[in-house]
Amino acid sequence: MRIIDIRERAVPVRSAMRNAAFDFSEMTTSVVAVVTDVVRAGQKVIGYAFNSTGRYACGAAMRERFIPRVLRANPESLQDAQGLLDPALVAACMATREKPGGDAERSVPIGTIETAVWDAVAKSLERPLWHVLAERYGGAPGMERVPVYVGGGWYQPHDDLAALDREIRGHLDAGYTHIKIKTGGVALDEDCRRIERALKLVGDSKRLAVDANGALPLDRATRYAKRLAGYDLRWFEEPCAPQAFGEFAALAAIYAPPLATGENLFCAADVTNLLQFGGFRVDRDVLQVDPPQAYGIAAFAGMVATLEAHGGDRRRVFPHGGNMMSFAVTAGLGLGSCEAYPGVFGAFGGYADTMTVIDGTLDWPDLPGIGFERQPQLFALMQELSA
Amino acid sequence: MRIIDIRERAVPVRSAMRNAAFDFSEMTTSVVAVVTDVVRAGQKVIGYAFNSTGRYACGAAMRERFIPRVLRANPESLQDAQGLLDPALVAACMATREKPGGDAERSVPIGTIETAVWDAVAKSLERPLWHVLAERYGGAPGMERVPVYVGGGWYQPHDDLAALDREIRGHLDAGYTHIKIKTGGVALDEDCRRIERALKLVGDSKRLAVDANGALPLDRATRYAKRLAGYDLRWFEEPCAPQAFGEFAALAAIYAPPLATGENLFCAADVTNLLQFGGFRVDRDVLQVDPPQAYGIAAFAGMVATLEAHGGDRRRVFPHGGNMMSFAVTAGLGLGSCEAYPGVFGAFGGYADTMTVIDGTLDWPDLPGIGFERQPQLFALMQELSA
Repeated sequence: MRIIDIRERAVPVRSAMRNAAFDFSEMTTSVVAVVTDVVRAGQKVIGYAFNSTGRYACGAAMRERFIPRVLRANPESLQDAQGLLDPALVAACMATREKPGGDAERSVPIGTIETAVWDAVAKSLERPLWHVLAERYGGAPGMERVPVYVGGGWYQPHDDLAALDREIRGHLDAGYTHIKIKTGGVALDEDCRRIERALKLVGDSKRLAVDANGALPLDRATRYAKRLAGYDLRWFEEPCAPQAFGEFAALAAIYAPPLATGENLFCAADVTNLLQFGGFRVDRDVLQVDPPQAYGIAAFAGMVATLEAHGGDRRRVFPHGGNMMSFAVTAGLGLGSCEAYPGVFGAFGGYADTMTVIDGTLDWPDLPGIGFERQPQLFALMQELSA
Repeated sequence: MRIIDIRERAVPVRSAMRNAAFDFSEMTTSVVAVVTDVVRAGQKVIGYAFNSTGRYACGAAMRERFIPRVLRANPESLQDAQGLLDPALVAACMATREKPGGDAERSVPIGTIETAVWDAVAKSLERPLWHVLAERYGGAPGMERVPVYVGGGWYQPHDDLAALDREIRGHLDAGYTHIKIKTGGVALDEDCRRIERALKLVGDSKRLAVDANGALPLDRATRYAKRLAGYDLRWFEEPCAPQAFGEFAALAAIYAPPLATGENLFCAADVTNLLQFGGFRVDRDVLQVDPPQAYGIAAFAGMVATLEAHGGDRRRVFPHGGNMMSFAVTAGLGLGSCEAYPGVFGAFGGYADTMTVIDGTLDWPDLPGIGFERQPQLFALMQELSA
């Protein structure tokens, strides 16, 4: 199995949302297609991916460094013993001639291409990616359906509390049961009113999480932690800057319910630092690395293994990014839950149109690869790469 | 003082060098020009910079995000009380709509543009940048001349030891006294032979440093530390992966002479982590952040202040990058020494042609701004941006 071309393009995400740290008005993402020489059903197998949400498109680095390295490589050096493409070897090839450190500059383009290679591998096997991952990473899940929760509760410029109420009712009506809302973007009292409104609707405090998006200075985060502890929420996400390990540890020392972090950790060393210095409590805290932004699925599986080696449980891993890539990883590795962002990230949010949300769970899609082909709006963008 | 345009282009560095971690055969850098509305000597003041060495060109991110944000901003929002451009405000403007964390992806483009703004500010004042920095950051140095050391001792494919000998003799003949050579790229015994050969030439172990470029796994780094300790070198640089703070701490616990790190730290949080968790010994270890790669000179000055708040001494700060930008910062802030890479990075290494190396020191250039105008080969590349 050989890669014969890798194509990419930048697409605007077109989201009007705002969290405590920033807005998405200029956000873009890179869509990639990895074209292989394998033919299934009379067509070349093409693997697709995009760089999840929240990080800008990174096509220049792909074009200038990562794609040429793969296309120049000896094809056999990228294959496993069965002659299939080995996504980890493709990622290692892309990392040639890269200076150590500064991972975030390359972990997104490399991780996105690596994820597309997985899509191609699973399609060449004519199996869903979650199934291939379950086999490879020993996570074969016993779940009947796959848990999903809504990432939402964004701040709205007008009638925020009423809008929050409407939004959450909509999610509950759509079959979701667990919800995460933004926090830290307004005054603490107002955030508490939002939390109380949300709790009234979702019913159980263990069904509600809050997310400060890394925006709070330590003194403000501490005030939030003290006030929020009483709500005993599912988790309090990114209270402080993502790499401020000392601040996370200080909050873990005073906030008894679970904390969560990880969508802004980009490599194995970041996760090791979190475990070693961040006060991350493996018995309760939640890890949320986003695979296509952090060198890809093989690297992500390594981080899960590191967490387990420290006594953690993969059911407390909740990969960032509400999309079919994070579904495949959640389902295939047997993680806690995937996210959903209904109606927020345009073509880049959501799941295959074959999948239904029932009582906070998704069904297992029987689609080859990641399954983007059953997301018509997104797949139309992807297909422009294979024209 | 207003910015009326910012231009950039990618230029290949054309270096054949290799260290323990990677080679430079594909390396590029971004050259930027910040065009202002200030006129001096009948010409618009233009600030220049490039993104130092070791990180690839980042023009796409500049064009797509950082430059448009500056050009769209209210010009007064980028000025200090005197109406001059405030480089820190320009950097903050560029960081709008950026997600927390993942700094390395933006600290290089933002830092490079910020450095060019400093060049323009100093030129508008018709003073050298080192002089402006000394005034602003209280580092007014008492040095008669500015210490400089050679970063070299790269591995050569043929007759490496003889080549090293020739290289060091050349540096000594050219007036340098302090030298750094690569380590960790061959077997430990061979690296020791290189160190011994170098020591024989430079004479004093406190004039020789070694640099492993972050390439050594902890077990190998530990073997190196045990063996190298006996040489009592000036410093042992980047023994392990740059963000592996636990590994740096483990080595600091067993290696008595100075360690050095920082050229792969990109933001204030990274430096805080190094001080808090990396076992960094403020009484001896060396910090080497590269200003244009780490959000620019104002952010760098903040890191120096953080080090001092932890009891460190700015004379143990040695900014990475042997160029006029690191000269201005070293001289202006009164740091330990700048680097030089004679003959290695083509147009992107070295100092103004007015400057001489005498007994391991450089003279103070009386050139407006950073002084790129007196680096003919480099300035020719920069001038293509103002055509």
